[in-house]
Amino acid sequence: MHSVENYKVVFEQYLGQGHFTREPNGLYEPVNYILRMGGKRLRPLLALMGYHVFADDFRQALPVAMAVELFHNFSLIHDDIMDEAPLRRGIPTVHSHFGLNAGILSGDVMLIYAQQYLLDAADAPLNVRLLKSFNRCAIQVCEGQQWDVDFERMDTVTIPQYLRMIEYKTAVLLGCSLEMGAMTAGASDSDLHHLYEFGRKLGIAFQLQDDLLDTFGDAGKFGKKTGGDIVQNKKTFLILKALELADSVAKANLLRLISTPTTDEQAKIQEVTTLLRQFKAPDLAKEERNHYHHQAIRHLDQVAVPDVRKLPLYELAEFLLNRDL
Amino acid sequence: MHSVENYKVVFEQYLGQGHFTREPNGLYEPVNYILRMGGKRLRPLLALMGYHVFADDFRQALPVAMAVELFHNFSLIHDDIMDEAPLRRGIPTVHSHFGLNAGILSGDVMLIYAQQYLLDAADAPLNVRLLKSFNRCAIQVCEGQQWDVDFERMDTVTIPQYLRMIEYKTAVLLGCSLEMGAMTAGASDSDLHHLYEFGRKLGIAFQLQDDLLDTFGDAGKFGKKTGGDIVQNKKTFLILKALELADSVAKANLLRLISTPTTDEQAKIQEVTTLLRQFKAPDLAKEERNHYHHQAIRHLDQVAVPDVRKLPLYELAEFLLNRDL
Repeated sequence: MHSVENYKVVFEQYLGQGHFTREPNGLYEPVNYILRMGGKRLRPLLALMGYHVFADDFRQALPVAMAVELFHNFSLIHDDIMDEAPLRRGIPTVHSHFGLNAGILSGDVMLIYAQQYLLDAADAPLNVRLLKSFNRCAIQVCEGQQWDVDFERMDTVTIPQYLRMIEYKTAVLLGCSLEMGAMTAGASDSDLHHLYEFGRKLGIAFQLQDDLLDTFGDAGKFGKKTGGDIVQNKKTFLILKALELADSVAKANLLRLISTPTTDEQAKIQEVTTLLRQFKAPDLAKEERNHYHHQAIRHLDQVAVPDVRKLPLYELAEFLLNRDL
Repeated sequence: MHSVENYKVVFEQYLGQGHFTREPNGLYEPVNYILRMGGKRLRPLLALMGYHVFADDFRQALPVAMAVELFHNFSLIHDDIMDEAPLRRGIPTVHSHFGLNAGILSGDVMLIYAQQYLLDAADAPLNVRLLKSFNRCAIQVCEGQQWDVDFERMDTVTIPQYLRMIEYKTAVLLGCSLEMGAMTAGASDSDLHHLYEFGRKLGIAFQLQDDLLDTFGDAGKFGKKTGGDIVQNKKTFLILKALELADSVAKANLLRLISTPTTDEQAKIQEVTTLLRQFKAPDLAKEERNHYHHQAIRHLDQVAVPDVRKLPLYELAEFLLNRDL
């Protein structure tokens, strides 16, 4: 079995083999720019690992891995425009480096190429199954992004609404990456189901962990400033849980805090985190995260292959959910 | 055989059957908004007519027709953002009505649904063939749009560069719509080739006609103000041809005119059209348009079915290229 790092090396090599060398340069330079930005490559790794659970030659899943990485980066480019984000991983975002038009159009062409890589990943009817799984997921990602945009303007967001938003925006693509990798290796419908659910539940747990890290993480180890979500008035699981449990005075106080622009960031972070702790929001978020994590593991348990083949996925789940708090 | 109007009625009925009724409303309302804006529905008509050349029950091609209409409207939404266009067909564009974010995201989801309609349009391996044709075309449309953006900033654009731009941005989707309709009806490779080429050449002729109409059309009949391209300093075929043939003094004069913002629109239109006429640009544009028109017809001639089945397409070609000048 391969360590996570090995899959990443194989994917990076494949990615380096000149995929977007066509003209016009103005269209393809931004594509290469964001693909070279790096990152965890989590989705392509899941595609390769999903394949490798069922068959040895996991390089067969490289086009599927490429498709999910292209789709993920398409969504990053367009989301960064919508969020007016100047930087990603410390580097100027596509639209701030190349302009709005290049951001829109290069994102569009990446979405089309994602489909094209899936079409070429296998013969019919397998590629049709890949595309059906992918399209369902891609539509959900758009819907999740729209809910995220909607939530900014809504006064009340329920916990189920929030969980569905992160499921659609983040989690389904993790499930779909695993599923499409496994599909390419010829996995059974039952195994595909459990692997997809493993990825989806893991994705929800992963996003809840991200919420926790953003507010309560160790800034040094996490690599990001803590409190970013609070400064941006984001309605995370933590905030929504505290609003649900707070008495009317504390609730009014919290609502006021998350609806006013920040003048003193540190004071605001301090005040909000105190309220979150008062209503045990971090503990309840950990509980919810653990719930989804355990459900994810139960699905992986039910994938009908020897444990040794699933070992890298068990390890990856541990790794993703044991980042420092 | 059906008149063009009949195909349109059938398509409009299909379109009215509640395709985008899902949540979230913020994502799907802009989709329904632009689909209800109307228009010629040229691309879906071509898909239905392409089918009808080879088989009777042209309603079978409705999902293909829907796919090309969705793709076309996706590209309109994103192009309108790039062009900062406030109006389309006299109605506020999607981004000016719903905001930039809605424009980007609703366009994205329409692109995904275009693929989904093609997947559902036929069983494998036919739907795979549809998607391969579609993806090649969709990538070219993005490339054509990028060239169009690039041309604004370039000092010199050659006639072949311009023709390739309009071919990619506009013409290939007409060819592809016909081809995919015909593919669904089981046409032979040779017939598919000739039908695609008919649409592609017709599209180039159609765009050259549009250039002519914009500058020399009868404003009343055309429904648009003439001279819009001149005011916007667009490098159309007319301008490029005049630049190619002008003596150095006239060339410098024309270059100055198309690189300065307009203070007196009417005076500028007058000055530019005089120069265009001086170097016979309108006659040469008509010649080029006729060249592509005749090539298109020659390809349609070679589609191996009785003429009566091709009659609506001959009529459509006449109709498109005999709009008033």
